[in-house]
Amino acid sequence: MSEKNHNEPSPWPLDSVVTELRQVRHEWRERQGRETDLGTRELPAHRHIHEVIDALCGILFPMRLGPSDLKKESEDFYVGHQLGHALNILVTQVRLELSCQQPRLESQAQDRKANEFVRRFATMLPALRRQLDQDVIAAYRGDPAASSVDEILLCYPGLLAIIHHRIANVFYVEGLRIIARIIAEKAHSVTGIDIHPGATIGSHFFIDHGTGVVVGETAVIGERVRLYQAVTLGAVRFDEDDQGALTKGEPRHPIVEDDVVIYAGATILGRITIGRGAVIGGNVWLTRDVPPGSRITQAVLRQSVDDHPSGG
Amino acid sequence: MSEKNHNEPSPWPLDSVVTELRQVRHEWRERQGRETDLGTRELPAHRHIHEVIDALCGILFPMRLGPSDLKKESEDFYVGHQLGHALNILVTQVRLELSCQQPRLESQAQDRKANEFVRRFATMLPALRRQLDQDVIAAYRGDPAASSVDEILLCYPGLLAIIHHRIANVFYVEGLRIIARIIAEKAHSVTGIDIHPGATIGSHFFIDHGTGVVVGETAVIGERVRLYQAVTLGAVRFDEDDQGALTKGEPRHPIVEDDVVIYAGATILGRITIGRGAVIGGNVWLTRDVPPGSRITQAVLRQSVDDHPSGG
Amino acid sequence: MSEKNHNEPSPWPLDSVVTELRQVRHEWRERQGRETDLGTRELPAHRHIHEVIDALCGILFPMRLGPSDLKKESEDFYVGHQLGHALNILVTQVRLELSCQQPRLESQAQDRKANEFVRRFATMLPALRRQLDQDVIAAYRGDPAASSVDEILLCYPGLLAIIHHRIANVFYVEGLRIIARIIAEKAHSVTGIDIHPGATIGSHFFIDHGTGVVVGETAVIGERVRLYQAVTLGAVRFDEDDQGALTKGEPRHPIVEDDVVIYAGATILGRITIGRGAVIGGNVWLTRDVPPGSRITQAVLRQSVDDHPSGG
Amino acid sequence: MSEKNHNEPSPWPLDSVVTELRQVRHEWRERQGRETDLGTRELPAHRHIHEVIDALCGILFPMRLGPSDLKKESEDFYVGHQLGHALNILVTQVRLELSCQQPRLESQAQDRKANEFVRRFATMLPALRRQLDQDVIAAYRGDPAASSVDEILLCYPGLLAIIHHRIANVFYVEGLRIIARIIAEKAHSVTGIDIHPGATIGSHFFIDHGTGVVVGETAVIGERVRLYQAVTLGAVRFDEDDQGALTKGEPRHPIVEDDVVIYAGATILGRITIGRGAVIGGNVWLTRDVPPGSRITQAVLRQSVDDHPSGG
Amino acid sequence: MSEKNHNEPSPWPLDSVVTELRQVRHEWRERQGRETDLGTRELPAHRHIHEVIDALCGILFPMRLGPSDLKKESEDFYVGHQLGHALNILVTQVRLELSCQQPRLESQAQDRKANEFVRRFATMLPALRRQLDQDVIAAYRGDPAASSVDEILLCYPGLLAIIHHRIANVFYVEGLRIIARIIAEKAHSVTGIDIHPGATIGSHFFIDHGTGVVVGETAVIGERVRLYQAVTLGAVRFDEDDQGALTKGEPRHPIVEDDVVIYAGATILGRITIGRGAVIGGNVWLTRDVPPGSRITQAVLRQSVDDHPSGG
Amino acid sequence: MSEKNHNEPSPWPLDSVVTELRQVRHEWRERQGRETDLGTRELPAHRHIHEVIDALCGILFPMRLGPSDLKKESEDFYVGHQLGHALNILVTQVRLELSCQQPRLESQAQDRKANEFVRRFATMLPALRRQLDQDVIAAYRGDPAASSVDEILLCYPGLLAIIHHRIANVFYVEGLRIIARIIAEKAHSVTGIDIHPGATIGSHFFIDHGTGVVVGETAVIGERVRLYQAVTLGAVRFDEDDQGALTKGEPRHPIVEDDVVIYAGATILGRITIGRGAVIGGNVWLTRDVPPGSRITQAVLRQSVDDHPSGG
Repeated sequence: MSEKNHNEPSPWPLDSVVTELRQVRHEWRERQGRETDLGTRELPAHRHIHEVIDALCGILFPMRLGPSDLKKESEDFYVGHQLGHALNILVTQVRLELSCQQPRLESQAQDRKANEFVRRFATMLPALRRQLDQDVIAAYRGDPAASSVDEILLCYPGLLAIIHHRIANVFYVEGLRIIARIIAEKAHSVTGIDIHPGATIGSHFFIDHGTGVVVGETAVIGERVRLYQAVTLGAVRFDEDDQGALTKGEPRHPIVEDDVVIYAGATILGRITIGRGAVIGGNVWLTRDVPPGSRITQAVLRQSVDDHPSGG
Repeated sequence: MSEKNHNEPSPWPLDSVVTELRQVRHEWRERQGRETDLGTRELPAHRHIHEVIDALCGILFPMRLGPSDLKKESEDFYVGHQLGHALNILVTQVRLELSCQQPRLESQAQDRKANEFVRRFATMLPALRRQLDQDVIAAYRGDPAASSVDEILLCYPGLLAIIHHRIANVFYVEGLRIIARIIAEKAHSVTGIDIHPGATIGSHFFIDHGTGVVVGETAVIGERVRLYQAVTLGAVRFDEDDQGALTKGEPRHPIVEDDVVIYAGATILGRITIGRGAVIGGNVWLTRDVPPGSRITQAVLRQSVDDHPSGG
Repeated sequence: MSEKNHNEPSPWPLDSVVTELRQVRHEWRERQGRETDLGTRELPAHRHIHEVIDALCGILFPMRLGPSDLKKESEDFYVGHQLGHALNILVTQVRLELSCQQPRLESQAQDRKANEFVRRFATMLPALRRQLDQDVIAAYRGDPAASSVDEILLCYPGLLAIIHHRIANVFYVEGLRIIARIIAEKAHSVTGIDIHPGATIGSHFFIDHGTGVVVGETAVIGERVRLYQAVTLGAVRFDEDDQGALTKGEPRHPIVEDDVVIYAGATILGRITIGRGAVIGGNVWLTRDVPPGSRITQAVLRQSVDDHPSGG
Repeated sequence: MSEKNHNEPSPWPLDSVVTELRQVRHEWRERQGRETDLGTRELPAHRHIHEVIDALCGILFPMRLGPSDLKKESEDFYVGHQLGHALNILVTQVRLELSCQQPRLESQAQDRKANEFVRRFATMLPALRRQLDQDVIAAYRGDPAASSVDEILLCYPGLLAIIHHRIANVFYVEGLRIIARIIAEKAHSVTGIDIHPGATIGSHFFIDHGTGVVVGETAVIGERVRLYQAVTLGAVRFDEDDQGALTKGEPRHPIVEDDVVIYAGATILGRITIGRGAVIGGNVWLTRDVPPGSRITQAVLRQSVDDHPSGG
Repeated sequence: MSEKNHNEPSPWPLDSVVTELRQVRHEWRERQGRETDLGTRELPAHRHIHEVIDALCGILFPMRLGPSDLKKESEDFYVGHQLGHALNILVTQVRLELSCQQPRLESQAQDRKANEFVRRFATMLPALRRQLDQDVIAAYRGDPAASSVDEILLCYPGLLAIIHHRIANVFYVEGLRIIARIIAEKAHSVTGIDIHPGATIGSHFFIDHGTGVVVGETAVIGERVRLYQAVTLGAVRFDEDDQGALTKGEPRHPIVEDDVVIYAGATILGRITIGRGAVIGGNVWLTRDVPPGSRITQAVLRQSVDDHPSGG
Repeated sequence: MSEKNHNEPSPWPLDSVVTELRQVRHEWRERQGRETDLGTRELPAHRHIHEVIDALCGILFPMRLGPSDLKKESEDFYVGHQLGHALNILVTQVRLELSCQQPRLESQAQDRKANEFVRRFATMLPALRRQLDQDVIAAYRGDPAASSVDEILLCYPGLLAIIHHRIANVFYVEGLRIIARIIAEKAHSVTGIDIHPGATIGSHFFIDHGTGVVVGETAVIGERVRLYQAVTLGAVRFDEDDQGALTKGEPRHPIVEDDVVIYAGATILGRITIGRGAVIGGNVWLTRDVPPGSRITQAVLRQSVDDHPSGG
């Protein structure tokens, strides 16, 4: 006869696993030269940044991205209330990133810098909304299938990505790199569109479908540019053994001038310039400048064979 | 000595930012001809549509996509309870979209239309489940690595995408375009598979891996078709300056006949027909009809060079 | 005059829909030979597996992926507490998958097996963390734009994918296939990176951007390998009519040796070997072995045409 | 050897219990004459009323009963946002109670009545706050142990009870009896103070400790009155066999004039008048009028006995 | 200049406090003879019992205590779904209490007993509802101020207390004492009414207001009995030094026969009998039998004095 | 024909109500002399204090008041983790109360004081647990109906009240009056037992049932004292007109010596002493000293009358 409760999981070796995990962390931190100061180094947290961004979406487009029961008469109250709430959370996160960057700066100076940045950020919001309105219009014009501007705001991942990017870019420009990247990755995870917060993007920008789009840190995109899914605006990489690491920040991604259209799957690499009004066809691979007004397409290859390898 | 609480964030310029944001909204609405009526125009909301769809997944597959503690004996109660709940939420959302479309229609007529649609939708669910069962079987047969039909339902993003599509398509056909798009975008965000709710898709449909798949609004897909990741069934675009915007709704995406397989990365554009039983190889670029039974593959190019540009 | 409450939705045909849905389920289960035993067959559930994985991320990297208010002094307590909690949930899920696999095995034997696996899994965590630390270093070195190892942990989807993969692979190796796939799909959904839990991946692995990456079940990846977005390590598929289904588990995906770099969009198919130190350029299509040290690039085709089909 | 999963609960007799419960409900509804119309009769719901009341507490005292991170600069935004939200919920609940009371009234007339009431209610809030400020002052003066008015708002159940009562009374006066009672019971449950929403209570009212206080529907309380725990202002009941049921609404509870103090446990019954400035001692039992300025105390009985019954 | 982050709390002495707390627990468990077996002794948990009870309230009165959006057409589905859910939770809790009571009983026997009890409990629910309907009617008749039976169900704490008691009593009778007490304390906390789950209470029971009511374990209450707030049906206690502890379970609380009314604050102690139809006045203190039909009232003492002690 | 959406609530007069409410707040703050500094005065918040207290209950009694799935092997991890979490929240709340008390003290000095207090508080927890273990034993001995010490911890509101009191008293003694009161009111709301955090209570304290118990700020209770429901240990109040307000903090509540038992409903008022071992009967009213070993009971009055007023 068993007196043992058969539902009872055996005790786990918690103590030994915890001890070993501590040891591994210790080794890592020693190697990284961090054992001494980590206790006082916190970083911006996904949860809080995500809350701020979700609030900002509602602040910028209250009747479309705000709460579903919002009425027009309450708009300003909602906007002001959310704004105060979001800025209070944000200032703490900004403070954390600043104190990581400059751990030796005096506490009050860090507070002051964080406050100043957040106040400045708040005043930029109306211009941001105005800019995003132009992106909405660009999307509405860019996709003949769109039935209304409301559909753009509610259903286009490309617009969500550009909202996130325009916010993230403000943080990037101020040197708040981790917050900027957390915002960009939020958009990447939801939309499959990976725009580095450092990219410079002009007005009336539109991405359709979007999954797999990659836009690099030093890319410069003009006005009224349109991208489709799986477009890459990347860097040319050279073998590290031969050339060493690229210097960070040096321009290494394409310049895309005004009114360019780049169709799905095109890969455009290096600090080349796609001239004004050029149209880059789908799946094209480009590493040299393209003059204004060009039409670049992939040569089409077709053949019927017995042996047909294919990627499953 | 400082008497100021150093934790206290400086007061934010809430009033002025709120005022400016209101001004920007006002300008936008004026330009969009909406200032007068917006207060009474609400739209379907993501949160509610998502709740309905999650409930429908459980209603259609209670023991696999329902709550983890569900027992077989409770299945019908669970299904009936969730169904009533989901339809009640849904009728409100349908009502909102109808009243956006026809703001001048009398309130009672809108109620009646919403109720009729939702009742009709409910009666379509058994057939929908039957159809999805065939998709499960197609996935099980299509991927030799699948160990059981349970694994399909629990772990295949392609199946999740087709569940969402078959539901979204019902709304699209009824003209409930925004709800349909919100459903499709939910699937797109989770799976990376972007099927326009207008696409017509036959039985036993299977998408493997799926990230980057795009299926356009007027695409027509036959029975037993299989797609892999990054396949595009898109439109051929012409320059707008030359041709003007495409007429919405006109057929502009491919027809894929029964028993076609399209491997990863293939791009198929325009109102062309891929004939019955054709196999399209990976990364192939296609803009012309393909006869039944064809095998199309990309020409393979390989070369070893010093200068090797690559997309990072 | 209407006495009817106009807000009241019409009653839905719940009874008939529930009855029909039951009938469809019944047909399905009969066809699948499951009608008799389903009531006692539960499967691992997304919700619980996801909770375990989120907890494991915090257990492995407490100060970066744990709660935002964690202090260094509390690390061990947090780790031990979460670990006990996660293992308790996990043992139940493992038990469910075991009893699906071997429904005839005695209950106590299933308990014993589940407990033994989970205990073994716990003791593997320190080595797992050590391995992941090397992946962090690989990412930091692999992307010149990364400003710190913290940025890697907080902002790189590639790292998130490899954390999930290294955990999922432990389950796969033990034959806990459904749990392994649920973990892999969690990463796929969030990052767009689809690594089959069966893939064997060496140390210092790095994926940049990542959307659209697919790594197949029998792929073998060496040390210090680097992949970019949309890389496929897939199988060559042959027509099923001609060849029948592939035998499950037979090696059918590439071997990628140490120090290989594969740029964005490259498609590598079949049980071929990419030799040590090879560099595969973007968008390359490969179905044959590549010798060590090779540099493979796509031939670049460019032309300016009037008729420029493109994938929208 | 047992093949049965021992964790599996036996199937419950759900069908038969559900059927019997339906039968019992059917009997009840038949007896109550409700079988026919219940489907269209919903009532105000605790959850929604509680949400409204919690919001109103924050609206009335934003820096004390609002969110803990509220700043003064955001007060108005918070108040306006919460107010819009609370009134939108409230109007639906009011509508439900009205349509229960007058099921035959036309739908639009019910909407109009509900809207009018809620609008009127909103405009009463400033006066309500002013009145409650006087109650705070009364509490601060009434309890020498109170260290600040903040302590009153945060820690005195008596104040919580009077906030609820003054709100509930507005609904009672308008005939919205069920909403009024739900509000009163919320306070009763949290504080142990049971004030019928029909009671009329003057300014500067204070209840200390409060558990067990009962104030009846037709009680009339003057200004600056102070009660302690377990005070009853009740009705005299007569045997129903002899006298039949009391007519509802007829004055049957005490009148307590200005400046009266009633100490703990005093029981005051019937339509008697406690004259201005009277002091009623603890545990006193009163069923006759008390002249202004009186001091009423219980006769004290004390004895030491062997047999000492006591209530455990 | 301070380099220390001023926001950083000093590290807490977690290790030493945790160690000391473990030592205190160890001492306690040694004294209680529990150190050896506690790891395998879990008890029923508040959270789960509360969830079961809340579900049962909805199961018994779906349109009044169920979800606010329930429609009549969904009632059975809701009831069946909640019932399955509640019974599944309950069987685990019952199992825990049984295994505490009889730790040496074989696991399968404990499972069987738990399943049998829960199945029996389920079949008792229709009768329970029927009984509670009579309590609703008693409340409606007992309080002339009640406007409808709906108001009783939504707003009378006395009814909530009797629902809890009638459920708790089923567990008590089966020897599931801890579950029974957790249920009773849930009602006590919310309503201030403390009925021991062992008390026997006849049909048509009504408690008005209720705060402070105490009904002891062996009390026996007949049909159509009515209690008001602060009534005690308790035991006579004797000094323990003289008499030793009372034998548990021996009848020591009053018998209250049919049709008795007991007004507020009455204290009735010991195994005495209050005869059929008696009326006990407010604040009366009773330790002897009362013949049927009696009317018992407190002698009223009143005096006006200078020195008037009172309980604040 | 109505074009107006009949579901739409009329716009509320939000602006005017918000403006008026601001005006009322302004008047209040001016009268209270607070208009200038309120923006920087936050107070401890219920939500956070409640979270701390709930965590402390689990820290002190992990296997009984901690999470229901806790295993003995995880106890220390749970305790340490929760402790760190709770103390981090607590130090912020303590800081808020300190800065209210001494707004002019330098920020760093406030931080230091808050940290020191919280560290001291942490080290007191083991002794607190030891003391509470004695209260559990007292409850177990005091109620012959208690079946186990587990039942005491899970089901006795009296024990919950004393846990809260012993914690609250630590804050009171340190001058953290608002936090202390919030803790005491939490217990009051849940149990109906109102113990002022200033009361001094010896070991082995037990309250049975408890609803309506009031223990005043300067009450002193010895060891092994037992109270029943509705016992008051209060102050004698004199008319304020005659005597003015009592000096705060002056002893004005009873001293109850060791081994005293006070039965239900007894009211004991003023700075009198109940001598060692005395037994005070139910409902007794006491305002004079009682010698050690006394037995005090109420004279029993009984009479049968026609006219029987009673408190409903």
